[in-house]
Amino acid sequence: MSTPQSEDDLIQSLFAPLTLGASGSFGLHDDVAFLSNRGAGIIVTQDQIIEGTHFLPDDPLDMIARRLVRRNLSDIIAKGAIPTAAFLSLAWPRGRPRSTMAEFVLGLGDDLNKLCAKCPLMGGDTSLTDGHLVASMTMIGRPCATSGQPVLRSGAKAGDVLAITGVIGDAYLGLQARLGLISPTSLEACIRFSAAPSPPRVEMAELIGRFARASLDVSDGLILDASRLGKASGVGISLDIGAIPLSDEAAAFVAQADEVPRLLLLATGGEDYQPLMAIGENDFGEFQSLSQQIGVRVTQVGRCLVGEGVTLTYQNRPIPMPPHTGWQI
Amino acid sequence: MSTPQSEDDLIQSLFAPLTLGASGSFGLHDDVAFLSNRGAGIIVTQDQIIEGTHFLPDDPLDMIARRLVRRNLSDIIAKGAIPTAAFLSLAWPRGRPRSTMAEFVLGLGDDLNKLCAKCPLMGGDTSLTDGHLVASMTMIGRPCATSGQPVLRSGAKAGDVLAITGVIGDAYLGLQARLGLISPTSLEACIRFSAAPSPPRVEMAELIGRFARASLDVSDGLILDASRLGKASGVGISLDIGAIPLSDEAAAFVAQADEVPRLLLLATGGEDYQPLMAIGENDFGEFQSLSQQIGVRVTQVGRCLVGEGVTLTYQNRPIPMPPHTGWQI
Repeated sequence: MSTPQSEDDLIQSLFAPLTLGASGSFGLHDDVAFLSNRGAGIIVTQDQIIEGTHFLPDDPLDMIARRLVRRNLSDIIAKGAIPTAAFLSLAWPRGRPRSTMAEFVLGLGDDLNKLCAKCPLMGGDTSLTDGHLVASMTMIGRPCATSGQPVLRSGAKAGDVLAITGVIGDAYLGLQARLGLISPTSLEACIRFSAAPSPPRVEMAELIGRFARASLDVSDGLILDASRLGKASGVGISLDIGAIPLSDEAAAFVAQADEVPRLLLLATGGEDYQPLMAIGENDFGEFQSLSQQIGVRVTQVGRCLVGEGVTLTYQNRPIPMPPHTGWQI
Repeated sequence: MSTPQSEDDLIQSLFAPLTLGASGSFGLHDDVAFLSNRGAGIIVTQDQIIEGTHFLPDDPLDMIARRLVRRNLSDIIAKGAIPTAAFLSLAWPRGRPRSTMAEFVLGLGDDLNKLCAKCPLMGGDTSLTDGHLVASMTMIGRPCATSGQPVLRSGAKAGDVLAITGVIGDAYLGLQARLGLISPTSLEACIRFSAAPSPPRVEMAELIGRFARASLDVSDGLILDASRLGKASGVGISLDIGAIPLSDEAAAFVAQADEVPRLLLLATGGEDYQPLMAIGENDFGEFQSLSQQIGVRVTQVGRCLVGEGVTLTYQNRPIPMPPHTGWQI
């Protein structure tokens, strides 16, 4: 899905002028907007899933709905916020029996209830289409930080620890297995995860709001998203691909062949839905420990540097940047 | 697009349980949600347009974007609110040249700027699709009423005047002409209107917020939407189809044949994007006069009654209800 004009360029050239300079739009440089209302504030994010682009036509409908919720939830948590309301636009293919819409709603409701800590569906729009299934969700969140502000892509400082929750690469491996591009043997957990990747539990938002100077969710690929955080913050990024946290399945996949090319596949595969966070060096120990107490694994994968751009290392040796760093549009 | 299970039934059976009883969702019985934040409040609406369902594949891209903005703006104005932020999800067909996306954005920006009184685009999501063009907009608004609350479908009282802005039926006639189902001769203005129907100017929101006890925008058909207002308010509705305000083109169309069947076509065609409002009888004169001062025509089309259901009249004679009262899904 790589294109001549990148998604970021497209957004900046076409859509950013339409913000009319509204400060809470962050010039469309961030993942959410901030709407202030007499001092109190909310954040808003919007993500869609499209049949054939973001999911396979025969994916179970409840998993498609879960994927939609989690794409949005991932942005909200990464900004240090708790989801408070969701809205759904659903373009439902005439060819899909109406009765199966209940399966979609089952996954939707279950994720909004459990993963999103009882986030209500507050409205939306359902229409029939002769085309593909398309679903767009708008999710609203309340920032946890005492400032009332979301954690942005900008704000990281040289010297900050770059850390990630959970593991990276399972969504990529699971999708490759489902597409028949690699053997599915011993990748059952990755296949399940890839159908509807999950961000960390919502309680993580409070710790991100308290500790992270900058944060975004890794959805397009770890390397590309790390470069976005660095660019927005005006810092360079050093990423140790040997430090990337992996599941046992992903670790076995990496060990089967040349490690570096396989690690680069995982670091550019995307759909991980894990917050990538810049944490002050002196805070990192406490942040990691408190995260562990709520059951969330946090791993240092790099560091913010004076300068710009991303440099990759593996076992203290520099690694050339791969041509594909993540997904754009 | 009529279906065995109505849109309203579908929403209530499948989606309403997901509101978890949140009061601002109005049980998905209204057109917007109300989000309260430390006393201040905003309303949120979400509407989509789908190629082949809501517009024709060869419609000009700027008009498609305008239609999307106006669908949402229409809901915001009808609730007595001013738009303050918009979000766009765009599923863009790979087969449409990327360069033409600028045409879409041109219409989008122009309408957000002018019709929506400088409403900023604050975020969204653009992805490519192998299927149809689908665009969903979330629009946020600030209620004008001193209560800070939106004007709901509920709230009308028996005796209230039922009034509508602008004219009804031009969108229907224009679409029929564009589809080649009726002769386009002398329907040029309707054809232009149908490509992107327009709600009244945004200043009308203040008057609606001040005067209307209940209001909704007529998008699915005047009779169907009137029945929704009556049902939500617990009143009956008497609608005088001879009083429906018509453009010169629509009046000529009605005069060409049996008047009643043609008036019923216009009263069920939908896409009018005009607020249908219940106004206290003693307030109606002032409301109409103030509307006229800002250039908006307001016409009484009926009255709220003790009871339930919609009764139609023409020249003081009852008219049977047509089998099709408006569009559902």
